[in-house]
Amino acid sequence: MTIVDRQWARVPLPAEFLSRISARFGDRFTQSRPILEQHGSNESHFEQSLPDGVIFARSTEDVVALVNLCADFGIPITPYGAGTSMEGNAMPIHGGVSLDMSQMDKVIAVNAEDFDCVVQPGVRREELNVHLRDQGLFFPIDPGANATIGGMASTRASGTNAVRYGTMKDAVLSLQIVTPQGKVIRTARRARKSAAGYDLTRLYVGSEGTLGIITEVTLRLHPVPDTISAAVCSFDTLGGAVDTVVQSIQCAVPLARVEILDKKQMVAVNRWSKLDYPEAPTLFFEFHGSAANVAEQVETVKTLAEANGGSAFSWSNLPEERTKLWRARHEAYYAAVNMRAGAIGWATDVCVPISRLAECIAETHVDLDASSVPATILGHVGDGNFHLIFSIDPDAPDEMGEVEAINARLVERALAMDGTCTGEHGIGIGKQEWLVAELGDAVEQMRMIKRALDPQNLLNPGKIFEIS
Amino acid sequence: MTIVDRQWARVPLPAEFLSRISARFGDRFTQSRPILEQHGSNESHFEQSLPDGVIFARSTEDVVALVNLCADFGIPITPYGAGTSMEGNAMPIHGGVSLDMSQMDKVIAVNAEDFDCVVQPGVRREELNVHLRDQGLFFPIDPGANATIGGMASTRASGTNAVRYGTMKDAVLSLQIVTPQGKVIRTARRARKSAAGYDLTRLYVGSEGTLGIITEVTLRLHPVPDTISAAVCSFDTLGGAVDTVVQSIQCAVPLARVEILDKKQMVAVNRWSKLDYPEAPTLFFEFHGSAANVAEQVETVKTLAEANGGSAFSWSNLPEERTKLWRARHEAYYAAVNMRAGAIGWATDVCVPISRLAECIAETHVDLDASSVPATILGHVGDGNFHLIFSIDPDAPDEMGEVEAINARLVERALAMDGTCTGEHGIGIGKQEWLVAELGDAVEQMRMIKRALDPQNLLNPGKIFEIS
Repeated sequence: MTIVDRQWARVPLPAEFLSRISARFGDRFTQSRPILEQHGSNESHFEQSLPDGVIFARSTEDVVALVNLCADFGIPITPYGAGTSMEGNAMPIHGGVSLDMSQMDKVIAVNAEDFDCVVQPGVRREELNVHLRDQGLFFPIDPGANATIGGMASTRASGTNAVRYGTMKDAVLSLQIVTPQGKVIRTARRARKSAAGYDLTRLYVGSEGTLGIITEVTLRLHPVPDTISAAVCSFDTLGGAVDTVVQSIQCAVPLARVEILDKKQMVAVNRWSKLDYPEAPTLFFEFHGSAANVAEQVETVKTLAEANGGSAFSWSNLPEERTKLWRARHEAYYAAVNMRAGAIGWATDVCVPISRLAECIAETHVDLDASSVPATILGHVGDGNFHLIFSIDPDAPDEMGEVEAINARLVERALAMDGTCTGEHGIGIGKQEWLVAELGDAVEQMRMIKRALDPQNLLNPGKIFEIS
Repeated sequence: MTIVDRQWARVPLPAEFLSRISARFGDRFTQSRPILEQHGSNESHFEQSLPDGVIFARSTEDVVALVNLCADFGIPITPYGAGTSMEGNAMPIHGGVSLDMSQMDKVIAVNAEDFDCVVQPGVRREELNVHLRDQGLFFPIDPGANATIGGMASTRASGTNAVRYGTMKDAVLSLQIVTPQGKVIRTARRARKSAAGYDLTRLYVGSEGTLGIITEVTLRLHPVPDTISAAVCSFDTLGGAVDTVVQSIQCAVPLARVEILDKKQMVAVNRWSKLDYPEAPTLFFEFHGSAANVAEQVETVKTLAEANGGSAFSWSNLPEERTKLWRARHEAYYAAVNMRAGAIGWATDVCVPISRLAECIAETHVDLDASSVPATILGHVGDGNFHLIFSIDPDAPDEMGEVEAINARLVERALAMDGTCTGEHGIGIGKQEWLVAELGDAVEQMRMIKRALDPQNLLNPGKIFEIS
């Protein structure tokens, strides 16, 4: 079986394939070592795994041509966006071609009256928001990193705004997909809702490029609120912070963002971003609405925070204060990892029902206190999703194993609380055994879908699960 | 091929099957004519199509036993909830067994702190809200009819609250499914979000019982707002009403409900519900929030309405006024159909980008003016989704054909505007050709999924598409 041989044995690309791909793509196909290394790396703790070549696509037609060519030779294709995913999702572990989408970076249309836009998958979220700014619209999904829209759709990303605006499953209205058979399909029209057959949009969102290649994304947008306020509040305990959030949601406060950072994370943030926040468990808030409504939200939350041991509640409508706060939040991962020079980062990603969040964090803290590897806690507390950020010494032989064990206990704890092993990073190569622990026989349904839509196992093979 | 024969030729159920099903289900399996007729009927214009038998399930184990038995004999299974679907979605057009879920009507758990609940699929939405009332929570999805939760999940239902609270795709957190192979799977944990593999939850939501049978639903709930106001406003033109809604959304007013009714629909509503609203294009609104915030929303919308030719804007916080308004809205379908005694109803269901809504309605009005069949227009204007309600004389031989032609032109108009042939009723048997017109080759992807997950074509065969 040629195909299986290619995928597993990583034999060199066949000469005829090389000649045909070069004829079609010219210097947009490369096997240069630095570019292979860039596309085989990751922002987390996985070992590098190089592709055999990299293609820079510029159009849907490019993608169709590549898929047809790779199908002829059984060469795997792994789509690549900004390389910011956390579970090795874009690493070409079975070799083949890394399909770099970053040059497909056009905003094709903004339909302001419909609150939507159509973009190529290589557009990055920050650039999209710059593009939208003068139309009074914004795209809310914010995973921290300046990821591409295609990559965010592929991993079902979310982040700080999800408590109010949802995740990529809510933000994507429609996708253009190139199938493993080289067909171009569109999963939905631009209507705001539809009951037209199976929800292919939501099937491809989060499928990590294993079922089809995203070549266009229609996104739901939101009007920029009249007033945006940011607030910070320190707490005696993490539990008090969590309770404040639960009670705020019970009071129907439409929190736009609410992030929890533990004491160690605040120390890291202060050091990295040169700030002087109190070094205690902290909530970062954002409120969206009319001026009067935001003032009312702030008042409600402030009262609840104070009743739960919150102090130094400070809030501001000033954009520069807000920017300072969220820059610090976005740099939190790097701040935590860089508490030790030269360290490797590892971000865990469980999400539990919010009623179990305080307990889950408390039990995890006990585990961390006994660990020799420094770690911080931060998370999207309104969703019950939190991350540990480990700062691992690459030269200390035991640290990686220690972190693996803590992560395993963390995931088991979350699953026992009816939570998930991944709130937003996806399965990639890092969470495959946990996916099975979480969903059991449902994973076999996923495999049946994969085998049906991609019988050659051409697209991003080895991600989410292996196909035997 | 025995299976194909059974499905298409509608031969009687085999004696051995009858003996085994009676042994397992006793008098919960029936072939009594009135019950067959009830399960072969529909609320719309399709001809009756009887099952060969009806099963009343009481547990997931019942469903597993039925699936295994039917798989052995190749007997189709069509799940049945409240029978309120509009596109023949629950009609057993290939015969076999109608699986009545209405006795699986327990609320299994309410997790108030997590804003979710777990229910059996036969629970009806109104009963669920009665159950939730004293916990300060509500389930917002409201398709008008008092449908079952399982049926609503299966058709991806929405309705009046979708503009703020989304559709069943947003409301369902997780499903328990019996697969065509008789396995029981769960699609997700109870965490508020997850990136764990393919989004099976969203794949089953809207799949109309063709991929698996829903035996448990975990639903997202919302806190009952502090203040709920209802408002009514008449307009000189439908266009003025639509513009008011578009501008309200642009001003970020978080409308909880906004419904449009044309002049004829208002005449029907007044007559049926014995009311005296002005007989002109009308918007029904509902606002949710704190007292101050609701007052602010009402003020903004009132100002916009007046600028768009709105008059007699009246609003109220009184529950009895609100109940009157929404009862009238929920009875609108029956009010419209019953403008003629003994008439058959037919509700169309297109949804277009909101920027095209006024134009789509205006062009449709021209078509209706030339028709001899009475019809009204009403819809969920915040989503761009509207319905024509035809009142068809069953004894007038040309009327059904005339309505078919108007519906065809309506769907073509909506598709030309990048809309969908169904905003919320599903494909069933009524929209299959339009599904192909709308999504083209994407329908083949759906078929590949159906073939992979249900290779015997056991579950609700002939719905969404035929499998050749």
